[in-house]
Amino acid sequence: MKTVLKVGGFAFSESRQESLVQQYVDLLKQLSKEHQLIVIAGGGAIARIYINAARKMGVPESLCDQLGIIVSRLNARLIADGLGEHAYPEIPLTVSELKHYFASGKIVAMGGLQPGHSTNAVAAIAAETVKAEIFVNATDVDGVYTNDPTKDPTAKRLEEVTVAELTKILSGGAVRAGTYDLMDPVALKVIERSRIPTTIVDGRTPINVLKAIRREKIGTRILFD
Amino acid sequence: MKTVLKVGGFAFSESRQESLVQQYVDLLKQLSKEHQLIVIAGGGAIARIYINAARKMGVPESLCDQLGIIVSRLNARLIADGLGEHAYPEIPLTVSELKHYFASGKIVAMGGLQPGHSTNAVAAIAAETVKAEIFVNATDVDGVYTNDPTKDPTAKRLEEVTVAELTKILSGGAVRAGTYDLMDPVALKVIERSRIPTTIVDGRTPINVLKAIRREKIGTRILFD
Amino acid sequence: MKTVLKVGGFAFSESRQESLVQQYVDLLKQLSKEHQLIVIAGGGAIARIYINAARKMGVPESLCDQLGIIVSRLNARLIADGLGEHAYPEIPLTVSELKHYFASGKIVAMGGLQPGHSTNAVAAIAAETVKAEIFVNATDVDGVYTNDPTKDPTAKRLEEVTVAELTKILSGGAVRAGTYDLMDPVALKVIERSRIPTTIVDGRTPINVLKAIRREKIGTRILFD
Amino acid sequence: MKTVLKVGGFAFSESRQESLVQQYVDLLKQLSKEHQLIVIAGGGAIARIYINAARKMGVPESLCDQLGIIVSRLNARLIADGLGEHAYPEIPLTVSELKHYFASGKIVAMGGLQPGHSTNAVAAIAAETVKAEIFVNATDVDGVYTNDPTKDPTAKRLEEVTVAELTKILSGGAVRAGTYDLMDPVALKVIERSRIPTTIVDGRTPINVLKAIRREKIGTRILFD
Amino acid sequence: MKTVLKVGGFAFSESRQESLVQQYVDLLKQLSKEHQLIVIAGGGAIARIYINAARKMGVPESLCDQLGIIVSRLNARLIADGLGEHAYPEIPLTVSELKHYFASGKIVAMGGLQPGHSTNAVAAIAAETVKAEIFVNATDVDGVYTNDPTKDPTAKRLEEVTVAELTKILSGGAVRAGTYDLMDPVALKVIERSRIPTTIVDGRTPINVLKAIRREKIGTRILFD
Amino acid sequence: MKTVLKVGGFAFSESRQESLVQQYVDLLKQLSKEHQLIVIAGGGAIARIYINAARKMGVPESLCDQLGIIVSRLNARLIADGLGEHAYPEIPLTVSELKHYFASGKIVAMGGLQPGHSTNAVAAIAAETVKAEIFVNATDVDGVYTNDPTKDPTAKRLEEVTVAELTKILSGGAVRAGTYDLMDPVALKVIERSRIPTTIVDGRTPINVLKAIRREKIGTRILFD
Repeated sequence: MKTVLKVGGFAFSESRQESLVQQYVDLLKQLSKEHQLIVIAGGGAIARIYINAARKMGVPESLCDQLGIIVSRLNARLIADGLGEHAYPEIPLTVSELKHYFASGKIVAMGGLQPGHSTNAVAAIAAETVKAEIFVNATDVDGVYTNDPTKDPTAKRLEEVTVAELTKILSGGAVRAGTYDLMDPVALKVIERSRIPTTIVDGRTPINVLKAIRREKIGTRILFD
Repeated sequence: MKTVLKVGGFAFSESRQESLVQQYVDLLKQLSKEHQLIVIAGGGAIARIYINAARKMGVPESLCDQLGIIVSRLNARLIADGLGEHAYPEIPLTVSELKHYFASGKIVAMGGLQPGHSTNAVAAIAAETVKAEIFVNATDVDGVYTNDPTKDPTAKRLEEVTVAELTKILSGGAVRAGTYDLMDPVALKVIERSRIPTTIVDGRTPINVLKAIRREKIGTRILFD
Repeated sequence: MKTVLKVGGFAFSESRQESLVQQYVDLLKQLSKEHQLIVIAGGGAIARIYINAARKMGVPESLCDQLGIIVSRLNARLIADGLGEHAYPEIPLTVSELKHYFASGKIVAMGGLQPGHSTNAVAAIAAETVKAEIFVNATDVDGVYTNDPTKDPTAKRLEEVTVAELTKILSGGAVRAGTYDLMDPVALKVIERSRIPTTIVDGRTPINVLKAIRREKIGTRILFD
Repeated sequence: MKTVLKVGGFAFSESRQESLVQQYVDLLKQLSKEHQLIVIAGGGAIARIYINAARKMGVPESLCDQLGIIVSRLNARLIADGLGEHAYPEIPLTVSELKHYFASGKIVAMGGLQPGHSTNAVAAIAAETVKAEIFVNATDVDGVYTNDPTKDPTAKRLEEVTVAELTKILSGGAVRAGTYDLMDPVALKVIERSRIPTTIVDGRTPINVLKAIRREKIGTRILFD
Repeated sequence: MKTVLKVGGFAFSESRQESLVQQYVDLLKQLSKEHQLIVIAGGGAIARIYINAARKMGVPESLCDQLGIIVSRLNARLIADGLGEHAYPEIPLTVSELKHYFASGKIVAMGGLQPGHSTNAVAAIAAETVKAEIFVNATDVDGVYTNDPTKDPTAKRLEEVTVAELTKILSGGAVRAGTYDLMDPVALKVIERSRIPTTIVDGRTPINVLKAIRREKIGTRILFD
Repeated sequence: MKTVLKVGGFAFSESRQESLVQQYVDLLKQLSKEHQLIVIAGGGAIARIYINAARKMGVPESLCDQLGIIVSRLNARLIADGLGEHAYPEIPLTVSELKHYFASGKIVAMGGLQPGHSTNAVAAIAAETVKAEIFVNATDVDGVYTNDPTKDPTAKRLEEVTVAELTKILSGGAVRAGTYDLMDPVALKVIERSRIPTTIVDGRTPINVLKAIRREKIGTRILFD
């Protein structure tokens, strides 16, 4: 089964990365027996260090994005190195390279592609390109809420959400480099136009990814109208 | 003055391209005396021929996008070749290459970058990257209307429009490869976050581009809230 | 069996491409069960649109050739996309890349390589590089004639022709970008020096390619002295 | 004057990078009026985070080196982005690219090149390649000591040291990824074979770099026998 | 004045290369004051060593060609290194890169491009691409003869020759890797289609190149019908 | 078994290369049945021709190194071409490419990587990267001596030597381009840090390589303290 997993940047922060990255590497090795996998790494806290330093020097936002992309590729490389012979040894820098490397049958780890895109959009495009049967987005929240749960105590987690509802919930979000949330408009449009089966889970506990792949009830599943 | 010009794919259709491309090449040569220029070419009718042929064979949308990107780069190369020594001799394939080539002081012609983006988004990102003072989007309509003028005879052309209004007008548009209209969400977000002065003009008459650059009243100007 | 197929640009014109490209894709999938295949795409009518536009602007012939090469690569990509997992996902840009991609065991689709060469020469070099057992050149004529049949009603189609005779028949032909006919001198020299079994067939009917591969009597076969 | 500056990874740690990187960017802009500059960035604490995570997963040392190289290139990009139009917009990945980019007259920022090399070796090779008149190595110590000052309180700082003495002082040092000290054997051999004028200074105070370039008494100067 | 110089492989043989290469480097430095230069290096004796070793192992001719191309690029690099800052620091591997590097205003040194082409064809294509005003082919013979002077003592050197005559004189020549003579069919067609002013001189005495550039009577000049 | 073989440049000199290269190609084909192989080629006499010519023109040492690297890659290509389908068709230029190509299961042939490194260091890094079980260094001496046997008639060949002893024996050696001996400091450090089982044999008789791989008593084996 062709499976795309997005692992948010949270997994690569200094305090967490050694144990969480190791857990994801172990999970991916196990999954690779039955799945042909693409794993997309986010940027996370280290990306934000560079983006902030650059922004203070007046660097344009698209180049701040680019710094975040480089960190996400570095995170992808850490996963690929940890996977050793289970992974394709290069990180794709374009969709063409992704196709090319995926054809090897090995796990392909990748980061961002171009400014303006989040790594969620990259994951959606990757899923579309290889006609993936499932796309799991492992984030550091436990699913999609009716509202921002850190601001609104009455916010409720949704087990299912349509693309239209999710677009509405997410609209108004800032699109500054390093601050994309859950899904950006490109990710949503791609998921919708190719009807990619997508689940958003709490990736701080990697077992949730496994549950989502096994179609167990976990996180928030995206529905199509 | 750093200026970014998007020339829609309409200028490169078989029937038009010889004369319109020639006119744009002449205009760009003239502008290059006072402007440092990036010109982004769209894909147009020839892109749609390839996209349709691919879609009928069941090719994924992201790869259909990629075919359109190749045609837009071919269109960019035609402009660069026509410009001769006025143009940088390579078409940038990434934002890094764009910066690199723009530093030469020559006109840089480019097409699309990655699937999921329209060439309007590319133009906005290019404008952001080089901190352009003006971005002119030469389309085959005479500006932004309150509604689709081909469907609604009461639709009125707007001289000015905010990003929020434009987002609303454009929402609901399909995002299949080759059908992006005027501006896509990525383009709008980038224009907004970096407050890029943007005008949409009817590029079927290239003199309109010149008018927009000279800040004459023409087409539709984008305002920031 | 290692087999090289050149599909002339005629197959990619707007009116024809959807059906003929689809037929070639189907044929290649079928052949790939028993053949290790390289397919070289020509440029055709769309290449000529760009070449003519460029030539009118005074662009040097070698750059006009280059525009034709880009279109031939776009045609190759359409075939590769149509073939999906049967094809290597990248178009080789050099002979080194060709070897590299061919080693994957997948069908490799490619276009032109460098100015001065026709795609017939590319096909001959590809056949030589991989030591192909057969090279079929699918054109939009039904074989080699003693003279140009559109000008000379007494011209007769040849079932077999030596390289020396073919050189003589083809000499005097213009070598402007986009106008190479059947075989150019580089193609002929390469076919001769490595004695590559070569047949020229009418590719407007793809079944003729199959016949040539099965060594049935079809088109014109090239003999060595 | 052709000048090569190595800025150790210490300048890019999270706590320091915003202010120190900014100071180096300002210093480089000022120097660029009279110097043609190459600046090599080290990896530092962020490199060590990735290297440690990889090493715990059993990744080979050469790939750990590679992770450090990627971080050093990311640091170089932060400097290049901060320099804006004063810098060449690409980070060279090979000595050939270095030559190529240096020919532009812009400041070239770069990181590591290949496993087995420290970024000090890269700086020495860069200095040799462009025939630099001075190489300043900005470290987080105040110069070369007769012994490790953190272990031996009687260690004395040397104002001058021969390559032979320095080789002796530094021998016995571990060469695990991310732990190269001051100068590695490759750096020393290159400095010696091309007699590159070299000074090691305390880069935690960027003004020391300026002093070294002005040939003021600062840090430790390397002598040739 | 845009000038293309082909220096045959003879100049790079072990016995000759130190002095002849040095003389060509000096000549090019001198010429660069008034000319914008491309210099194409041939392969010569060292190319033939590798080609022969490969051919004995049954390597296909196109890959033997490729070995010769690598040696010609190595020869080009030796010239570029000798020229130092007068040369563009990279060797172009494609016509696109040639345009790109030539735009720098520096001398561009290059070798072969693709199998099937001689370096004479490369030189002709380079001359066409940049619209060179003169192409001098420095060989190890003193011009074009009516017949092979080593076999026919009555052969006479021609001061002028038409492309048609030269084609006839050169026809019948073998086209095995490393054995192309003076001009190959691609070179001649390109020279003819773009009417490139071309002179073949005895390059064993570099002063002859200077004479040809100054339009003095030397070697054999190619005429157009 | 993963096996790395370094074949010194001596095997590629004009007089020797046809027979010795052929013998190594045959040996590698035979070994490939049981071993996953990387073969690193040195530069040798032809490298020295180019290095000497460049050095006389005042070219910097790092660029002389680069010329030697190109020749070593040319030597690697000759081996790869001779191996035909047993070899990966591209020569890796970086450690990343090496991993990438090695994953194909084919024999990978490579030359040098960057200035400052010998090809012995490249071989050690390659062995470390793929976690090779044995590294055989085929040289043109019959092992390591207590002293230079051409200068000291009492020098004795060592059957085993520790890294520390070897470092001492080799210290004092010049490190000018093209003159690295047996092992350079980078090679020794890498062998030591990853405890790579290494044997130095007389490669003028290729059977010695086979003996070393079979752990027979031959040449000099490197011990770890």
